[in-house]
Amino acid sequence: MFPSNQWYVAGWDCEIDRAPMARTICGEPIVLYRKFDRTVVALRDACPHRLLPLSMGIKEGDNIRCRYHGLLINGEGFAVEMPIKTERVHKSVCTKAYPVAERHRFVWVWIGEPEKADAALIPDFWPCSHPDWTFDGGYYPIKCDFRLVIDNLMDLTHETYVHQGSIGQADILEAPITTHSDGNRVVVTRWMPNIDAPPFWRNALKREGPVDRWQICHYVAPSSVIIDVGVAPVSAGATVEKHDQGVRGFVIDAMTPESETTTHYFWGMARNFDVDDTGFTARFKRQQGEVFLEDVEVLEAQQRSIASNPSLRLKAFSIDTGGIRARQVIERLSAPE
Amino acid sequence: MFPSNQWYVAGWDCEIDRAPMARTICGEPIVLYRKFDRTVVALRDACPHRLLPLSMGIKEGDNIRCRYHGLLINGEGFAVEMPIKTERVHKSVCTKAYPVAERHRFVWVWIGEPEKADAALIPDFWPCSHPDWTFDGGYYPIKCDFRLVIDNLMDLTHETYVHQGSIGQADILEAPITTHSDGNRVVVTRWMPNIDAPPFWRNALKREGPVDRWQICHYVAPSSVIIDVGVAPVSAGATVEKHDQGVRGFVIDAMTPESETTTHYFWGMARNFDVDDTGFTARFKRQQGEVFLEDVEVLEAQQRSIASNPSLRLKAFSIDTGGIRARQVIERLSAPE
Amino acid sequence: MFPSNQWYVAGWDCEIDRAPMARTICGEPIVLYRKFDRTVVALRDACPHRLLPLSMGIKEGDNIRCRYHGLLINGEGFAVEMPIKTERVHKSVCTKAYPVAERHRFVWVWIGEPEKADAALIPDFWPCSHPDWTFDGGYYPIKCDFRLVIDNLMDLTHETYVHQGSIGQADILEAPITTHSDGNRVVVTRWMPNIDAPPFWRNALKREGPVDRWQICHYVAPSSVIIDVGVAPVSAGATVEKHDQGVRGFVIDAMTPESETTTHYFWGMARNFDVDDTGFTARFKRQQGEVFLEDVEVLEAQQRSIASNPSLRLKAFSIDTGGIRARQVIERLSAPE
Repeated sequence: MFPSNQWYVAGWDCEIDRAPMARTICGEPIVLYRKFDRTVVALRDACPHRLLPLSMGIKEGDNIRCRYHGLLINGEGFAVEMPIKTERVHKSVCTKAYPVAERHRFVWVWIGEPEKADAALIPDFWPCSHPDWTFDGGYYPIKCDFRLVIDNLMDLTHETYVHQGSIGQADILEAPITTHSDGNRVVVTRWMPNIDAPPFWRNALKREGPVDRWQICHYVAPSSVIIDVGVAPVSAGATVEKHDQGVRGFVIDAMTPESETTTHYFWGMARNFDVDDTGFTARFKRQQGEVFLEDVEVLEAQQRSIASNPSLRLKAFSIDTGGIRARQVIERLSAPE
Repeated sequence: MFPSNQWYVAGWDCEIDRAPMARTICGEPIVLYRKFDRTVVALRDACPHRLLPLSMGIKEGDNIRCRYHGLLINGEGFAVEMPIKTERVHKSVCTKAYPVAERHRFVWVWIGEPEKADAALIPDFWPCSHPDWTFDGGYYPIKCDFRLVIDNLMDLTHETYVHQGSIGQADILEAPITTHSDGNRVVVTRWMPNIDAPPFWRNALKREGPVDRWQICHYVAPSSVIIDVGVAPVSAGATVEKHDQGVRGFVIDAMTPESETTTHYFWGMARNFDVDDTGFTARFKRQQGEVFLEDVEVLEAQQRSIASNPSLRLKAFSIDTGGIRARQVIERLSAPE
Repeated sequence: MFPSNQWYVAGWDCEIDRAPMARTICGEPIVLYRKFDRTVVALRDACPHRLLPLSMGIKEGDNIRCRYHGLLINGEGFAVEMPIKTERVHKSVCTKAYPVAERHRFVWVWIGEPEKADAALIPDFWPCSHPDWTFDGGYYPIKCDFRLVIDNLMDLTHETYVHQGSIGQADILEAPITTHSDGNRVVVTRWMPNIDAPPFWRNALKREGPVDRWQICHYVAPSSVIIDVGVAPVSAGATVEKHDQGVRGFVIDAMTPESETTTHYFWGMARNFDVDDTGFTARFKRQQGEVFLEDVEVLEAQQRSIASNPSLRLKAFSIDTGGIRARQVIERLSAPE
């Protein structure tokens, strides 16, 4: 159903604190909270006794006490005190503990076999935590299959219509795209050489003159898309392979499946310009949130239409090549081994 | 599931304009809009590309552009421009186009095989468009099987109880009814000779004295009921076969299935008296709307009760003969050929 | 699915009056009303004609007339007048009549084969109707399996956590319990000899000094729990077998299944002290209602968690022995004979 043995974003670092928070990931109800040492605990959100959500429980130090009969569970998911405190605790009284890691501003959980968890496999969202970059963003729940969001982000022609009131520009459609895939990676590249920079990028670059512009969509298994965007003065000689001469951003999109038809959408932008301008950061986050709400409206309508037209199938055009290849990776990663 | 190869009312003529309107008919999501020449287009409400409802799209002349990636669809359902405008359009990129006709104040769509559509098969709602008659009415969505509404209308004994606060009259129950069926037609006739006209009809007739009164319910396949009502002075010699001597109305009821348990109910009355009295028309429409809301309440409760009593079956009394025969026609028309 | 051939509480005596009331019991929609002689009628809540709920009908003396076509049904469920009054009524035109009895302040209906109904099998809620006792309580619908409520009541250790803001007391956990079962009866006994009476009971007893205290939970098939609570001065020599020397209450809990995941919860307390203090009765009812709302919150969360964790099972600890045995009785009574 979903790619297994994978790291998924469970939340923003700032969402998860000492108080328990419930979030369902790949169909599995999970409770998340921080210990005193700031590390995050992720447990199946059901008391092993009578299944009351542990997220309703009471924190006691780094443990959590079920609010029904008081079973006390530690951060590894094992009961450490029975409802009758004098009774011996058996180690079979436990709830599933998920491997967790915090990296690049996100808390990640490993869905699959815990013994296979390896922090080295966490998607490399380096611009989100690099000291020379600034990163911020938000969260939306979306009532659609996470793959529809990936389709959306792997093809930016939709901007012209979905975002016609905000960032849509007809001229983007005229630039050709190339799609490249390799193993679990899929990259859709749109390189726009020697053009006039649009207002946003001219402001970022702080100078006039022709630029090379790029939009490079990276699908990152299992369920993220990172879009490398920016411009550089033509004179700087930027190339598809190396283009760090101008101003640059990474649009970050992590789509964590909640169920087959609902998705946790974590979005933001990392940038390497005006990194200390907190006002810009806040304004841009608000604007980006408004743009993504336009996607949410379309994606939820698409999901409803898929449900009400069971005899119809999605059709793929050339613009969908990136999304199609990402879906092939997802299908391969979702297959039982 | 529903009678196929049939014309169904898709909407009032005044409901459908140049802006796209979504309506699901017999389980098929459809988008309706008018072209510049005022003819109506009916297409499956799903872009052939990624299934976003076309009803969310942007009209461009007589075409509609999908609001997701900009595929441009014409009134026959064929794509005429790809998201990347330079790409060639293949004729397989199309959405289903439904035969449409506008007649008797309604827009009709043909559900079934398009090549079998024949405007001559549109139910003959002649009083709705006859120059000597006046017609107006309204629309209600009802959360029930369309056949429950047909049952309701083919037996007017319910008026006594459902409409006891409005038009119900106990004496109607005393007049005998006869049921006649022939092919796809079913007629339930109640002839009340030589009675005092009730207030409504006395006002319509504008004179005192004994009248012959009639209520003749015509089931019209696949899903309409037309009720011929009126009075004539006894001296005029009206008969069941010929009764146009007095004042007469046709209660129009078109029940278009939306799903197995929801129905689009189009209702109104055509009349041949006071045809230019627009105040009467408006007042009567309001009153009729209030009466039909009483039916809606009962029909939705009946549907819920059917769902919550799966072991129970509807029972038929003599008063249900008309509805039973109409259901037999519906069943025959719904059978695969 | 539910124990059959059993009496279930259908409502408080004060809930059911001459006007029809709808209530679904063990999945069967039922209409309840009183006749002039005050006896209660319980019929399947569907007109045998077209299934409109009879609870929407119009009372005529002790009969009920369907509000759709006017079929008149008597208190035994048989039609006594057809929509066309001159038509003969056939005895096959009837709706199921349920055996009903009123006892101990509740109206009971027999779910199962009517000929097996025997008022002697009605659970003996004697304190609810004994002249030396006072009884009052309330009603809550709960969105959970009725067995979860029984589990809850057969183990009072949950009070410490669920009711920590109201009646929870950590010291109750320290008293040992014993569980005894015999046929369809299950009893969980907590006997607390020679302790200080808590404030509630000291007020009830109206004297200082050490007491023996008890909480004895009786599961009463098919779906009730009665909890015998109270204290007696140590000097009175109360025993588990005989403890009517002090002040005593019976917490009454009747959990009537509505569906597999919803329950009608009738609750109250009968007491043998201050029986004429109506102010006490009203205040205690309000407080008890607030405490039980804390259970409702937990029980509904537990039900949702069971649904969203289909791979997990409830686990039984020693404290659950009473509930487990009650479930065994329920399973036995639910088996087809």
